[in-house]
Amino acid sequence: MMEFDLIDRIRARVVRRGDVRLGIGDDAALLVPHATERLVAACDTMNVGVHFPPDTAPADIGWKALAVNLSDLAAMGATPAWALLSLSLPQPDAAWLDAFLDGFSELAARHDVALVGGDTTRGALSICVTALGFVPHAQALKRANAHPGDIVCVTGTLGDAAAGLQRWEHPAPDAGASADAEAHAFLRRRLARPTPRVAAAAILRGRARACIDVSDGLVADLGHVARASAVAIDIDAAALPASNALRRLADAAGRLPLQAAGGDDYELAFTVAQIDCDALLADLIASGTPATRIGRVRDGDGVALLDPAGNPLPVPRGWRHFAESAAT
Amino acid sequence: MMEFDLIDRIRARVVRRGDVRLGIGDDAALLVPHATERLVAACDTMNVGVHFPPDTAPADIGWKALAVNLSDLAAMGATPAWALLSLSLPQPDAAWLDAFLDGFSELAARHDVALVGGDTTRGALSICVTALGFVPHAQALKRANAHPGDIVCVTGTLGDAAAGLQRWEHPAPDAGASADAEAHAFLRRRLARPTPRVAAAAILRGRARACIDVSDGLVADLGHVARASAVAIDIDAAALPASNALRRLADAAGRLPLQAAGGDDYELAFTVAQIDCDALLADLIASGTPATRIGRVRDGDGVALLDPAGNPLPVPRGWRHFAESAAT
Repeated sequence: MMEFDLIDRIRARVVRRGDVRLGIGDDAALLVPHATERLVAACDTMNVGVHFPPDTAPADIGWKALAVNLSDLAAMGATPAWALLSLSLPQPDAAWLDAFLDGFSELAARHDVALVGGDTTRGALSICVTALGFVPHAQALKRANAHPGDIVCVTGTLGDAAAGLQRWEHPAPDAGASADAEAHAFLRRRLARPTPRVAAAAILRGRARACIDVSDGLVADLGHVARASAVAIDIDAAALPASNALRRLADAAGRLPLQAAGGDDYELAFTVAQIDCDALLADLIASGTPATRIGRVRDGDGVALLDPAGNPLPVPRGWRHFAESAAT
Repeated sequence: MMEFDLIDRIRARVVRRGDVRLGIGDDAALLVPHATERLVAACDTMNVGVHFPPDTAPADIGWKALAVNLSDLAAMGATPAWALLSLSLPQPDAAWLDAFLDGFSELAARHDVALVGGDTTRGALSICVTALGFVPHAQALKRANAHPGDIVCVTGTLGDAAAGLQRWEHPAPDAGASADAEAHAFLRRRLARPTPRVAAAAILRGRARACIDVSDGLVADLGHVARASAVAIDIDAAALPASNALRRLADAAGRLPLQAAGGDDYELAFTVAQIDCDALLADLIASGTPATRIGRVRDGDGVALLDPAGNPLPVPRGWRHFAESAAT
């Protein structure tokens, strides 16, 4: 199978959009930008053995490679439009590719994202996706825009993906009750198929102040917001939202490191002016996106995790690429 | 060294443009599209051992990873504006990264291309670049637009990169005369630092008909044009432009396979209506881009390589990714 056959397989499954004048099959894509909006662009790569275990289902890899980029756009308040996919495979494998495209295309169709270009090459398994989207002028959500007094909130639940990975890497000898098995499956699915918060982004833009997606871990990611905004952020550890599955499998002490430092949840952490917070949370929840207050922005620097008495807790470290090799 | 240090190193060397509202350092870049033009997007990956030998100088890798994408934009007639870079490295290496950025930044500065995003990850050495640019509405150069009767032309010279790679992989025992050594160095440089035909693209758009960049080999790439346009293309083998360096090191019989099937030259092959051809070539040459007539479009299908008597010559095969593994 040649590169061109791979490209035909991919092209056969692409979402069609009116703003794509020329998609896959020429030297580059020709696209009609939204004249009055900002173009938003993100590019993230996933490598085997680093971002996903080698035995990950190809459909899940396809879903997640797109999801992490749609999540980056959502963190800016943007709605996605187009994607480019650069796929490196150790050898051509039609069955693998079709399964990969099942996952990629399912998520692309859900958000009307047209795959408009990219390439296929030989190499270690690696997936690089560029996502392009739009946000109305002046409504983009920047990390640098948190203000002292803002409320800090997060969508969905935290720690699920990290718990899912933990149990994948160290499976329990006995899955126990079937309710436990269901909880495991839920956590595993949260890791494998994160939900980019595209719908929430359309509600948050122009209303939230700062925003980031939780990919490296809540404390680490809010650390980026605090640094960029030159503020401090206090997080109420007891307020961190946990899924029923995570509650079932871990007590509060076991959950906290997963929720505060576990990555890969792809929820949106955002700040909002206190006066706007109730209405914004109500609109999110009414639209089907759970969202929870978890802290407060104040003058200062750094991110603190506080117990119910307001005393600082030790902050677990988030995941960092290259952390392992840097330590040697 | 952490991912964030790598990002700081990269950010310090970025071209500044007024249409970048937010570049590296947030979840995604915020860009101002050109309202009346088409957005043009291309994404190509280079993997160690596949697209470049492991002993390639990092500065050359940086240059070429951007060059191949600017070449794709040029083949659409587009002027580049922004790029995203996703870099996978086996381990963090500041010296390698700085050298890589020397090459990448030199080419980016030459064409005023702002690096606006991307990521750094751990993995086998792999460089994925997405290039974004613009072409005025209705002036884009598409593969599917070749017409019977068009003249086929190519910029620059052909076969240099393939000859450079051949001599890299099989060095001559003795470099011989110093003029030979100079010729070797020229060919090697053509392979390592291809010149994307950005200036030519601005002249060709709206005036040429079909266009493609020569990455897989002239016959293979014109094959894409012929298929997309549902035409046949005849190439006059004796007309293929050769550099003095290639002429010095190979006779006509030795040059032909390199010129017809060697990849990686990143010249533009284009078709133009016969009536427009003289003026277009004159404008290209006046602007500093050599360009040569090499053939003709006619009814039919396929690409034929003709000797001076008009008899078909055997067509050497071009490079295809996956070709080796597909053969096993």
